[in-house]
Formats: sequence, C-alpha cells, structure tokens
Amino acid sequence: MSSSLLNTLIERLRVLPTVGPRSARRMALHLLQSDRAGGLKLSQALSEAMEKINNCQQCQNFTEQTLCTVCSDSSRDASALCVVENPADVDLIELASGYQGRYFVLMGRLSPLDGIGPDELGVEQLFQLIRSSGVEEVILATSTSVEGDATAYYISDQLVNDDIKVTRLMNGIPAGGELEAVAGSTLKQAFSLRQTFPAD
Amino acid sequence: MSSSLLNTLIERLRVLPTVGPRSARRMALHLLQSDRAGGLKLSQALSEAMEKINNCQQCQNFTEQTLCTVCSDSSRDASALCVVENPADVDLIELASGYQGRYFVLMGRLSPLDGIGPDELGVEQLFQLIRSSGVEEVILATSTSVEGDATAYYISDQLVNDDIKVTRLMNGIPAGGELEAVAGSTLKQAFSLRQTFPAD
Repeated sequence: MSSSLLNTLIERLRVLPTVGPRSARRMALHLLQSDRAGGLKLSQALSEAMEKINNCQQCQNFTEQTLCTVCSDSSRDASALCVVENPADVDLIELASGYQGRYFVLMGRLSPLDGIGPDELGVEQLFQLIRSSGVEEVILATSTSVEGDATAYYISDQLVNDDIKVTRLMNGIPAGGELEAVAGSTLKQAFSLRQTFPAD
Repeated sequence: MSSSLLNTLIERLRVLPTVGPRSARRMALHLLQSDRAGGLKLSQALSEAMEKINNCQQCQNFTEQTLCTVCSDSSRDASALCVVENPADVDLIELASGYQGRYFVLMGRLSPLDGIGPDELGVEQLFQLIRSSGVEEVILATSTSVEGDATAYYISDQLVNDDIKVTRLMNGIPAGGELEAVAGSTLKQAFSLRQTFPAD
C-alpha cells in the first residue's frame, strides 16, 4: 500500500473475528472512500467501550456502571437466578422469554483443554451470590454443547446440599446448539417447560 | 444489551461492509472478552487513517503525504502511466508485474446509474497529467467488467488526437473479472502481452 497508515489500519482490522487480509483491505478502503465519518465514530465507540466497559460486580455481565441494569433493578425477582454463558444470551432471554429474575453470566463455559476451569468462570462468586441473596431457583441456561452440559452438571453438583431448586432449560433447544441459534418462540417454550436438573 | 456503550459499539461496527447485526455483536463481545488491547489499537489506527490519509495530488492514490511513494520516486519511468480503478490494484501490479512506470487511480469506474461520471473519477486531472508530464504510453488496467470497459473506452476516446500510445491489459484477465481476482502470474503475462487499444 502507498500509505503506511493504511497498512496499519488493514493489519489492525484483523483483530476482528473472521476478518482476513482481503476483507480487512476492503473494509479499510470502503471507509476511506465512502464513510470517513462512520470510521471516526467507530474509532470513538471502540476506545470508549474498551476503556469504560467493565464487569457487573454481581453478575459479571458487561456494564459501564458498578452494577448492570438488571442487577440494579429492584423490581426484578431476586429469588430466581439464570446462569448463562454470554452477555448475548441475557439479551436473547430478555427479548424472548418474559423472565423476570436475575442472571449470572459465566463469560464462557468449562473447557479444560482451553484452560477454562471453574475459577475462570467466577463460580465462587456465583455460589456466594446464590447463598447470600435468597435465591430459591437456579436456572441453568448454558448451551447444550458438551462443555455447556458439563458446566451445568458442575454447578448443580456443587449445589446438591443446598436447599435450592436447580433447573435446566430442556425443551426446544437442539442438542449441540448454542442459545444464539434458537428462535425466540422456542426459547420462550424452553423457559416455560424447564425441568428439574439432574432429572429425577 | 446491559451496556449502552456496547450497544453503540455494535451499531458503529456496522459501517464495515458485510457486517450485519449478528457479526457486529460477535466482534464487540470478542474484543471486550479477549482483546481489549487490540480493540484500542484498532481505534487508534482508524482515527489516524480517517484523519490523516488523503489523496495523492498527482495520481489520487491514498497517501498521508502530498505525493504518494510511487509519484515521489524519481527513479520511476515517467513515460508510462497505468490507469487503475482502486488503490488495491496498484498494490497487485506492484507485487506481480515488475512494472516500473507510474499510476493514476480513478477511485472507481464510470457508472452513470450510481452517479459516477468522468468528474467523479478525476479524469480532467488524468488528462492534464498525461499532457504535461511527457507520458508516452497510457496503460488502461481498469477491470474487464462492463463499467471497467466503458471507462477504458472513454479515456482512450479522449486521447485519440494526442500522440500517445494507449494500451489495455488484454491477455489473461477473465471477462467480467476484477483485477483483484487475478493470480499474480496471470497479471504479469497480461502486462507483457498488452495490446494497442482499441484494437487495430
């Protein structure tokens, strides 16, 4: 490239998932030729998000406050806690299910080969939250992948001596599936038909 | 989303071509979870590129100087001028062909339906450059799409009364193809076998 700034931009764009050298070049040229204002706004949104977004002290979800909007909403039902893998799962459930309880976001799932164990997911914080805040039902909404199932079993196992109902979204989520790939109506049904976990 | 900064980032990412709402969300979450340093570097590269990259005063290619590296290189052969559609085409030719002349980058091609006429491509500047700087051969390396051909015909038509050889890359580029999709070896051959245009 004739411009070293352009080279740098193309290289930096490759931090984005699924963006290879050719798409990075297309993206950079598109912004320079047709949408510099949009490029500048993206730059600002990126730096603000990277610098100011942290994890909710209660549920680990992304927020720029100490507590996220769900955790700081006193009208939510504190007796139900839904455990999900990702922030995107919270959005999907909020949009689709009418669920009024709270969440805990693991920011991943157990995956020993990738070095992700219970500590990396913050499960100690999860158990503290469950035991200290009057949670009566823990809804395990991790994915139905092998790792998502293992994560659900691990959590339910640790709660077996607590007087807490542990359920898992069962009906409607295809085996091996990510929550993200499930239609809203299916998710709603999966919520209303959730089953005791492990099965009786 | 629980974070308005995150919402803003997801929305802003959609200025990138081919990025829809779902990929934008994946990109944002990936950066927040796994690569904040990369996100900040991307932010900086974006703002620098958008603010500092302009068009070379001679050939229109992107550069952060007044003249691009090719135009400011006095060892290049000023008697040959290769006309391309995009900055990426310059890179491809530089890498593949051994061409030692100069370039003019149209930053597009004639496309009346999109409102892109000769003025938008800077052809007046092109003709001035050709007539004022001792150019002996103009190599039309626009794409072989309908619009790329039309652009080549338009330029050659305007030069018909000048004592200038006008050639067009002919051999090896598939009909309807973009220069970008052509292998380096094909491009090299196309260069060495370039033909007088329009054909005798």
